[in-house]
Amino acid sequence: MIIAALASAPGKAGISVIRLSGKGSCGILKEFLTSARIRNNFEYNRLYFTKFVNEGELIDEVTVVFFKEDHSYTGEESAEIFCHGSPLIVKKILEALYESKKVRKAQPGEFTQRRFMNGKTDLVQAEAVIDLINSESDAAYTASKEQLEGGLSIELKKINQMLIDLISLLEIELDFSEEELEFTPAGEICDKIGDAIEVINKFIQGYKKGRIYKDGIKVVLAGEVNVGKSSLMNRLLQSDRVIVTDIAGTTRDTIEEKIEVHGYLLRLFDTAGLRETDDIIESEGITRSKKLLKEADIVLQIIDSANEASVTEIEAENVIRVYNKCDLKDIPVHSGSVKISCKTGQGIEELKDLMVKTVIEENMSYQPYYISNLRHLNVLKETAEKLQQAKITVSSSDTNEVIILDLRQALDTLGELTGETTSLDIINNIFSKFCIGK
Amino acid sequence: MIIAALASAPGKAGISVIRLSGKGSCGILKEFLTSARIRNNFEYNRLYFTKFVNEGELIDEVTVVFFKEDHSYTGEESAEIFCHGSPLIVKKILEALYESKKVRKAQPGEFTQRRFMNGKTDLVQAEAVIDLINSESDAAYTASKEQLEGGLSIELKKINQMLIDLISLLEIELDFSEEELEFTPAGEICDKIGDAIEVINKFIQGYKKGRIYKDGIKVVLAGEVNVGKSSLMNRLLQSDRVIVTDIAGTTRDTIEEKIEVHGYLLRLFDTAGLRETDDIIESEGITRSKKLLKEADIVLQIIDSANEASVTEIEAENVIRVYNKCDLKDIPVHSGSVKISCKTGQGIEELKDLMVKTVIEENMSYQPYYISNLRHLNVLKETAEKLQQAKITVSSSDTNEVIILDLRQALDTLGELTGETTSLDIINNIFSKFCIGK
Repeated sequence: MIIAALASAPGKAGISVIRLSGKGSCGILKEFLTSARIRNNFEYNRLYFTKFVNEGELIDEVTVVFFKEDHSYTGEESAEIFCHGSPLIVKKILEALYESKKVRKAQPGEFTQRRFMNGKTDLVQAEAVIDLINSESDAAYTASKEQLEGGLSIELKKINQMLIDLISLLEIELDFSEEELEFTPAGEICDKIGDAIEVINKFIQGYKKGRIYKDGIKVVLAGEVNVGKSSLMNRLLQSDRVIVTDIAGTTRDTIEEKIEVHGYLLRLFDTAGLRETDDIIESEGITRSKKLLKEADIVLQIIDSANEASVTEIEAENVIRVYNKCDLKDIPVHSGSVKISCKTGQGIEELKDLMVKTVIEENMSYQPYYISNLRHLNVLKETAEKLQQAKITVSSSDTNEVIILDLRQALDTLGELTGETTSLDIINNIFSKFCIGK
Repeated sequence: MIIAALASAPGKAGISVIRLSGKGSCGILKEFLTSARIRNNFEYNRLYFTKFVNEGELIDEVTVVFFKEDHSYTGEESAEIFCHGSPLIVKKILEALYESKKVRKAQPGEFTQRRFMNGKTDLVQAEAVIDLINSESDAAYTASKEQLEGGLSIELKKINQMLIDLISLLEIELDFSEEELEFTPAGEICDKIGDAIEVINKFIQGYKKGRIYKDGIKVVLAGEVNVGKSSLMNRLLQSDRVIVTDIAGTTRDTIEEKIEVHGYLLRLFDTAGLRETDDIIESEGITRSKKLLKEADIVLQIIDSANEASVTEIEAENVIRVYNKCDLKDIPVHSGSVKISCKTGQGIEELKDLMVKTVIEENMSYQPYYISNLRHLNVLKETAEKLQQAKITVSSSDTNEVIILDLRQALDTLGELTGETTSLDIINNIFSKFCIGK
């Protein structure tokens, strides 16, 4: 079936782009166009200026282009329409196409899903497309671009090859098991499996960094009332606000704002009232705040410099103590802490540097094994577990058949990453997160 | 100077379109592209898949197309870039172009302004482009499409020709004034000027209809408290809401909502409290409500059926009395009034029909002389005034030279419409209302 959808962002603009894909796309589109040149003999990849007419009514003057299956995004015959950027015109063109009964509305991500199904991309690369579109910082952009270009895919293929080599070795021994062949010692096989696990673990450990590249650094602002949490939030936002919208969290009391510092996205969470009266609703709020602290990459503990004695310890991985109001009382602070004044702006740049330095190592550049997708992490963890199982099988002196079975299971699990053995449910789920028209 | 801007709507999407225009566009874009085919010898109007690279860094995989000046929107050499629909990528590509110092950010409407300046469109047609993009109903779409196709331009040219013919006639007489030629009698000249005025008046009278096509029918909901104004608003919106956003008016107390009925846009204004206590703020509110009533195409006077006796007259051009709560008390109503129940939905469809019928004549179809732009109206009114002046000049038996002067002034005024004699200030003002990238 031919699919069609708006491929550019919705809204009023100079140009809107409508994309069609599927066998027969060009033929069906031609029926709506008045150009004799297109009707007689169009060239692929060439832009034609023409009129889009439905049942005698001129809908819009448009530009169109036709793609052969070997030169299209989806790997199918497809076409694109460039019309005036009016939501009403887009609606009219799409409705005209749908009414033909040969074209249906595309599902979210369906164009890229078809690209994947037609073997023009692996699953990891396809997932990078949506990450690329959503990237909100230079770091996220770099990560998704590398993934799209196939950096991660190449690394994953290496692991894949390691497992295939190992299985082949064991299978050859199986074929010759009747003969008196020198078998690979169990210890050596264990070592080879161990090597594969080690490589996978490098990816698993890279997840945190990958996530920071893609999703940004989660910074939670904590502290007593009136120490200047909101003032700090505003100070940080004033200078570096990248995204204008306030995102209301799951609860009304958690506010998220985003800023970009040195190319990294910092996601700032304001927690209102960590320790207040003990009524039910407020204690629920505190539970949430505690959860937030646990998930934080960095906790900024904001302290009133005039009131530093009463400070309690916060339990979290990285806590930066931020002594505010240093314009009123200037106290000495330890390294790893910082004194600021939200009023004068003093120390704000230092704080920003410190936040990035706390999480990002000096000169840390993007590595292809920095996975950032939770699905990828889980698949790799499962693969590692299955390889551990294989190691146990080897140690318990089982036959090669059983070891091969274990290794094949690990290989199949790994295949879910690149899409070789991924179930349709998972694939559908991945693409449903895309926008329509991609 | 070469200009560039995002031409598709801003936001995350499958595809974004960036447009460049100006002599040298193709050359400058080529510098950022890796394709050898493009560098060596590209064809115009052909889409090329390539990489956009800035200072060694790959920005995105893109598709590009180049246009010769005779085949472009602007009438200049131009190019388009289709990249991933990521705001960050769009920003990076535009910044790379701007940094070249040969390209600058396009002003709102500048592409269409260049199209106009290069003689590829007249001003009336150029103005239709923005109307087309903004059109929110079938009627608005039809009106702006007709205008874009040149329907209005052709009609205006006819008036233009009438005046030129008249001037020519008088000039010929001037040339032969030394000889004993039979002059056209003053009465006949007056008649000819009168004919032109009559045609112009047809346009002036068509303004109201044109405005209804383009901007919709202004419906003001009025009535005492608790008669069901808000309930009616919700009833109408529930079934036919076209635009989801509530538009806050100039004052907080006026709410505008839009619905589409039979292809026409109905703009519903809720006036809260027409006659309440006489404190200063409220009396200001009443002044505003009265202004709204005066501007309304239709006033819906909502009346509680149980309380119909106490109803006061509303002064407005078209008042429809709407007797609500007919499920509670069913009273007979005059033709031109309607009984409804917001609770059961009874009478709502009838009310919608009545609203459209009140303003739109039976089988009213769009006419090319339905102007919808206030600028057009004012220019035409001024032209008519100048023609009236010419008639007076003729009557006062002035020489042909003076009459010709008057007529030329009228002709110049008319020229402001199509752009022939429009000042740069007015032109800039017109295009500044466009979106960037158009």
